[in-house]
Amino acid sequence: MSRYDPFPSRLKESDERINPFVRLDPVIHSRNEFRWHGPLDEVALSRYERDGFLWFEGFFNQERMAPFFTELREMAQDSELMASDQVIQDPASGDIRSVFAMHQISEHFNRLTRDPRILGMVRQLLGSEVYIHQSRINDKFGFEGSGFNWHSDFETWHSEDGMPRMRAVSASLMLTDNNEFNGPLMLIPGSHHYFVPCFGETPDLHWKDSLKTQRLGVPDQDALAMLANRGGIEAPKGPAGSLLLFECNTLHASNKNMSPWPRSNLFFVYNSIDNTLESPYAAESQRPEFLATRENTSPLTMHDDFPELASQGVEPLRFRGS
Amino acid sequence: MSRYDPFPSRLKESDERINPFVRLDPVIHSRNEFRWHGPLDEVALSRYERDGFLWFEGFFNQERMAPFFTELREMAQDSELMASDQVIQDPASGDIRSVFAMHQISEHFNRLTRDPRILGMVRQLLGSEVYIHQSRINDKFGFEGSGFNWHSDFETWHSEDGMPRMRAVSASLMLTDNNEFNGPLMLIPGSHHYFVPCFGETPDLHWKDSLKTQRLGVPDQDALAMLANRGGIEAPKGPAGSLLLFECNTLHASNKNMSPWPRSNLFFVYNSIDNTLESPYAAESQRPEFLATRENTSPLTMHDDFPELASQGVEPLRFRGS
Repeated sequence: MSRYDPFPSRLKESDERINPFVRLDPVIHSRNEFRWHGPLDEVALSRYERDGFLWFEGFFNQERMAPFFTELREMAQDSELMASDQVIQDPASGDIRSVFAMHQISEHFNRLTRDPRILGMVRQLLGSEVYIHQSRINDKFGFEGSGFNWHSDFETWHSEDGMPRMRAVSASLMLTDNNEFNGPLMLIPGSHHYFVPCFGETPDLHWKDSLKTQRLGVPDQDALAMLANRGGIEAPKGPAGSLLLFECNTLHASNKNMSPWPRSNLFFVYNSIDNTLESPYAAESQRPEFLATRENTSPLTMHDDFPELASQGVEPLRFRGS
Repeated sequence: MSRYDPFPSRLKESDERINPFVRLDPVIHSRNEFRWHGPLDEVALSRYERDGFLWFEGFFNQERMAPFFTELREMAQDSELMASDQVIQDPASGDIRSVFAMHQISEHFNRLTRDPRILGMVRQLLGSEVYIHQSRINDKFGFEGSGFNWHSDFETWHSEDGMPRMRAVSASLMLTDNNEFNGPLMLIPGSHHYFVPCFGETPDLHWKDSLKTQRLGVPDQDALAMLANRGGIEAPKGPAGSLLLFECNTLHASNKNMSPWPRSNLFFVYNSIDNTLESPYAAESQRPEFLATRENTSPLTMHDDFPELASQGVEPLRFRGS
């Protein structure tokens, strides 16, 4: 490939090691632009800039999550959907691990991606209109759900999907309680400030394995240790309805679910409409549309599913960071 | 086998399921016996009886742990020891996972087993003189150390070693900090009140595999869920030098070390001299002496390695439970 790659990764064994380097892109893309003012205050913005994530305990109340479960149970009865590529099984147990493109399967989930409060924050962080790059639900059944190795989502989206720059944010909504024992998401605060080039060439159709167990795009132990020793590790915990916003390059992982309590988290990835996908930077072919949106990149419009909230204006945000 | 077995386990697939039943033995064996009075007060004893464990944060100060590390580093240089059966490798990484019979390899560790404060508490709990049934160190290297499935030690010691009754206690001394991310020990409070018969016959030389990955002697998910929903899960965390005492039948497990920080815990298992091993209840042959002491079961005598402590009498204990 002769194309210039600002974020080289998936290096060959014969390539020279490239040390982690400082990210080239802003973390917050809207600073001082009145147009993208939103619900996050300066404290929240500074924290996001420093840590690479924001945690909102009890963002929605738990009762509000119930209809989503009902719909998930219905989906599990849909044998055609369950047999499709967009449903990924757990490598150990064979249970459902992930379902992709939730916002296309369900109008209910689609509306949730356009919640005024979430969308307001996301636009504020990305300084532009946004679209859904990917949506998924990650399930971990009791005593079974396997973990995820440390990785930066951006590393994958850049290498395998051709996302040019770091201008995306994931919103993860907890559909169940997340506690210390059911495999909560762990993050390395501050890791988003560095891009870590990873070794290992992307094989063809890599996604068919990588979504079960990620082996490529995992930083080496020296880089991980450097970043974890610098920033520590945090695992936000809270009731169903809690929300995590995390920057696309923040390193995260999760451990096995050791408890009887299922863990089910919804992920919506918002990308800037000024950051749409090109051809992959380190893979031969594109991944399927349900993993990486190329077709429908028109800006999301707010959907006010909850007029009672809107009539009160945007609520004050409660968040607990480091 | 025609021998009566009060704690049947390792059932054949053709056997009928036996539900968890209430333990037949006391949790504290010394109640009201003046002879076995010791450092634990009524609050601590009640908590141990209720939860099946006691946690002493900072039982020894961290500097006191340093010489043990020096000795461990020396052991790692001992190629004969490292090649022996008593050193167990991690199934995933090949690093050291466990070293058994630490108290026989090292005079330094031997003395630690006879620390007056620890021995005083253990005798108080078991209501008798005690000996070391097993000692080991469990290591989890950064980013590597695999976890341990949920199990009761007593289930194994009874089935594979012929320990007749529940009258043993493990003392686990943290040689490194144990935190949320380096695979700390998890326990189900109150689980020691029940014996959970497990399915799966013990194959010959089972210990050669089971010490790498435990598959037998793991309660089924219904039993685990019942007990975890009743008692919750706890993972005591604290600095090097912290001490955990846990009853031989308390269900425990640990997850993978997701951090760069190694986790190294020392375990001394004390058994009552009135509870010495018989022939195994659910295995064809005995396990080696380094896993299950049969030869030297004479009572431990206190060794006062730290006269400065003894001259002040036994220190007041600080502990944090649930």
